[in-house]
Amino acid sequence: MQKLKHIPTLEDINASHEAIKSMIHRTPILTSQSLNQITGAQLFFKCENFQKIGAFKMRGASNAALRLTDAERAKGLATHSSGNHAQAVALSAKLLGIPAYIVMPDTSPSIKIAGTKGYGAEVTFSQNTQASREQTLEAVVARTGATFIHPYDDYNVIAGQATAAKELIEDTNELDIILSPVGGGGLMSGTALTTHYLLPNAEVLGAEPQEVNDAWRSFTTGQLQRNTTINTIADGLRTNLSAKTFGIISHHVNDILTVSEEAIIKAMRLCWERMKIIIEPSSAVPLAAILTHPERFKGKKVGLILTGGNVDLQQLPF
Amino acid sequence: MQKLKHIPTLEDINASHEAIKSMIHRTPILTSQSLNQITGAQLFFKCENFQKIGAFKMRGASNAALRLTDAERAKGLATHSSGNHAQAVALSAKLLGIPAYIVMPDTSPSIKIAGTKGYGAEVTFSQNTQASREQTLEAVVARTGATFIHPYDDYNVIAGQATAAKELIEDTNELDIILSPVGGGGLMSGTALTTHYLLPNAEVLGAEPQEVNDAWRSFTTGQLQRNTTINTIADGLRTNLSAKTFGIISHHVNDILTVSEEAIIKAMRLCWERMKIIIEPSSAVPLAAILTHPERFKGKKVGLILTGGNVDLQQLPF
Repeated sequence: MQKLKHIPTLEDINASHEAIKSMIHRTPILTSQSLNQITGAQLFFKCENFQKIGAFKMRGASNAALRLTDAERAKGLATHSSGNHAQAVALSAKLLGIPAYIVMPDTSPSIKIAGTKGYGAEVTFSQNTQASREQTLEAVVARTGATFIHPYDDYNVIAGQATAAKELIEDTNELDIILSPVGGGGLMSGTALTTHYLLPNAEVLGAEPQEVNDAWRSFTTGQLQRNTTINTIADGLRTNLSAKTFGIISHHVNDILTVSEEAIIKAMRLCWERMKIIIEPSSAVPLAAILTHPERFKGKKVGLILTGGNVDLQQLPF
Repeated sequence: MQKLKHIPTLEDINASHEAIKSMIHRTPILTSQSLNQITGAQLFFKCENFQKIGAFKMRGASNAALRLTDAERAKGLATHSSGNHAQAVALSAKLLGIPAYIVMPDTSPSIKIAGTKGYGAEVTFSQNTQASREQTLEAVVARTGATFIHPYDDYNVIAGQATAAKELIEDTNELDIILSPVGGGGLMSGTALTTHYLLPNAEVLGAEPQEVNDAWRSFTTGQLQRNTTINTIADGLRTNLSAKTFGIISHHVNDILTVSEEAIIKAMRLCWERMKIIIEPSSAVPLAAILTHPERFKGKKVGLILTGGNVDLQQLPF
């Protein structure tokens, strides 16, 4: 496989899915009678919280790693990430027998730092600002020659994330709506592409915390916007859209719904209590969108991607 | 179906399974590479935390309810229970369109009280002593004429609980050991019977908190013993064996392993963090037994029943 330099086609997504098969789980799709009753919709939860490293990020990172040349691979993988992408890059490197160098903000959840080190990666801490992360990473890359795997502004990563919606569509019957959270937009743009190719009549909606609504503002104004705060419990969604993800989202997403912090915590708790599964706050954002805008989903067959389950049990919001 | 007045045969268990089919879920069996690595065994988790009402108790309660006469059914079901059995009787009654009268200790977790009322049952509170529970229940039965469904000292209930191990055995390949927690012994005795009939070469082990080790003492002395304290986090296992359950356990269980409170909390946390599923403390006792006695399980194929997932999120031990 070669590195993708264009928006992934259906063939690219299919080839990516085939390539990463041995590095990921095909995760189950769960349903809940009680959540169907509460929402009036028929919900299908794609459980990426059961994915390797506990999040969908394994799909994109492994796909990007597999598309490097042998010479590039030998020098290893590098990235900066507050969590799930860090672990995904670390495990991808471990499975390929190559080194991983991860820059993590010193405010990262301890469970995610431990997970990253547990996969054998070298962790370098930065301050929790974009500038500090990028500078620290630059130094690491200069020292090691490792290839930077961007968490989302990379068509190889996007093609990998697109495989979650591919499985969701393959394992359900004619969904009316597919809902994904939006952070940096890697999963959102991959989901939008897959749905566009495989289920063109379905609506693709993004769900985003009001507190970090850069995607909603970018989508509605047509201009790429940035967050001014990162004041949300959904730690996976504090990042900004990039040129590549915004390009795909602005063409292939039907709408973006924003939700309050209260709605996120309520939805997270509902999943824990009714479905008996552990999801992280970012995963709860699509269900929060359904609870906030119920009329939009009543009677519909809705696929939701539960993005991850890496929660610090010492820091629960309830 | 008629009421069982004898130790359930394989035919009784098969008939019970067929009868309750529409009132229960066939729950999935999950595996975890990381827990296999930690224990050195191959573990198969029967996820009764995903069962209706969030626990295996639905199996026994529905089976007992289905074996009542029409005249008995019309007057409804009654029981005393601190939690899962209460919800199981309440939902069984709801599904059959008959009343349920539940006596609950006033110390019961709020989530379980809410769940029981949510199924339309009439809840009467007692003090948290066996005497108070039984007296309060007697008054309820005298007033209503409802039939008392005992949580475990009842062959109909035992035959229902036996169906969990039946599915576990059917859906796996030649387990070496089957592990169940022991509280009142309904699940343990049902599991022992099923294994005896369907997988006679497998070992059947019980797992019990040291703090409420009546089953271990009964098993090792050959005399039915009672707990003197209820000082365990595993709230589902504070009850005592009964004549019927001890009779089956003393014949068909190979051994009972006891575990510390620390081991229970550690095992519970491992399931939450590694498997991303919510289990209640009682469910963690079999994994705690494996972590406490690893040599006994190394290299073996072990089936564990995760009994339930009803946890008060406000009262977590970590």
